[in-house]
Amino acid sequence: MTIDLASAERILAAAKARAEALGVKVGLSIVDPRGDLKAAVRMDGAPWRVILISQGKAFAAAAFGVPSGDLAERANSAVMRALMEMEGGRVIPTQGAIPIRRDDEVLGAIGVSGAPTSEQDEDIAIAGASAF
Amino acid sequence: MTIDLASAERILAAAKARAEALGVKVGLSIVDPRGDLKAAVRMDGAPWRVILISQGKAFAAAAFGVPSGDLAERANSAVMRALMEMEGGRVIPTQGAIPIRRDDEVLGAIGVSGAPTSEQDEDIAIAGASAF
Amino acid sequence: MTIDLASAERILAAAKARAEALGVKVGLSIVDPRGDLKAAVRMDGAPWRVILISQGKAFAAAAFGVPSGDLAERANSAVMRALMEMEGGRVIPTQGAIPIRRDDEVLGAIGVSGAPTSEQDEDIAIAGASAF
Amino acid sequence: MTIDLASAERILAAAKARAEALGVKVGLSIVDPRGDLKAAVRMDGAPWRVILISQGKAFAAAAFGVPSGDLAERANSAVMRALMEMEGGRVIPTQGAIPIRRDDEVLGAIGVSGAPTSEQDEDIAIAGASAF
Repeated sequence: MTIDLASAERILAAAKARAEALGVKVGLSIVDPRGDLKAAVRMDGAPWRVILISQGKAFAAAAFGVPSGDLAERANSAVMRALMEMEGGRVIPTQGAIPIRRDDEVLGAIGVSGAPTSEQDEDIAIAGASAF
Repeated sequence: MTIDLASAERILAAAKARAEALGVKVGLSIVDPRGDLKAAVRMDGAPWRVILISQGKAFAAAAFGVPSGDLAERANSAVMRALMEMEGGRVIPTQGAIPIRRDDEVLGAIGVSGAPTSEQDEDIAIAGASAF
Repeated sequence: MTIDLASAERILAAAKARAEALGVKVGLSIVDPRGDLKAAVRMDGAPWRVILISQGKAFAAAAFGVPSGDLAERANSAVMRALMEMEGGRVIPTQGAIPIRRDDEVLGAIGVSGAPTSEQDEDIAIAGASAF
Repeated sequence: MTIDLASAERILAAAKARAEALGVKVGLSIVDPRGDLKAAVRMDGAPWRVILISQGKAFAAAAFGVPSGDLAERANSAVMRALMEMEGGRVIPTQGAIPIRRDDEVLGAIGVSGAPTSEQDEDIAIAGASAF
């Protein structure tokens, strides 16, 4: 099972509304369980890099089935560095992404980048995931 | 100048409506003039690769300021192969993307992948760009 | 908005004059907000690598909108390593580059490499940016 | 021996004047005999890609000691493809670059990209090299 587009768009809208309420400009990515992009938006004024970083965080959350922030202490482990190398840098084990689940199954993940703190990035991701 | 998100979302919606009318499942990407992602969606049932390919086509259209199909005969040129290598494969000079312009300025591009023919991909891209 | 060539050349001349006053041989790069090269010079006697390193530092300063030295403590973060991987090594979060701004907008950055210390590299970059 | 910076700047100025006379916006790169960048400028309005392409053409001219256009028919040879791969795409055997010589020695090369035709790119490169 993988997240469907209607749900992904509802999640993105809720997350974007949260970012606007916080007054921050972010990039937001939703990926499927394999880490491939399902939907993404970059808010006006957010720099180019945030879309890549949001996608990398979502990739990490989907790959391991946990919030990407839970992976931060393993960021320099051999496994994580190898995976980063094998996937061309596209896995970023840093706070700001949340798996999207139905029961025990991971259907995808939402990742956020660009807020002043990664706590805010995660807060926005949670607001999005809560709309599922 | 770069395409704004409200316009990008309107373009995506129009392109997606065209894909649905054609009964095809595609990936759609909108990039800024430098080829960085502004917004993307992958329709339900479309495979993972279409989002990468739609982005690569959009990158090519934005970089050269022409429909990506116009670049197809130069796809094996040394310039194109070098650019593909330097940009990590992210430029795809194949039919299916259209620059988005205001007057003479390229504001971005829309790329589409996944329809049975690249003519259909381009048809969907044109339907999107027409909503701008 | 992006830095114009006349300004870039004036900035390079001021930075080069500063390097000559310090008696050091450096590479100097000016990039646009996306990190793409606008102008560069390598002083006589400076080795090949300094031009690549100066460009990488400028890329980092432009991408994050801060002096590249401010990024040094994050140089081993997952985000920075991923970006370095995704951008083919072209981002170098090390002292020696300064964003070029008009009001709140980043128009580009100047990066310097090759002086005996990175403090001197940054000093030269600041001398350049001050000419803007 | 390698081209000195004062000569490189004089060559760039002459080439840029020729581009302005032709009314075209180009990227211009001067490399040393190894293909490493000595100096570069991107004219206002010229897209990001031209600086990379001008550098790749100059690399090819310096590496083989002939105008890059003379290499075009060998662009798909195994040697050229291997070299392009080994050098990360940075060698572009396409018209638009000229070696810079003193007597029999190659001191570097000037490469140009961005004019409507590669004949014009080469014309601008020749105007630059003639200033040496």
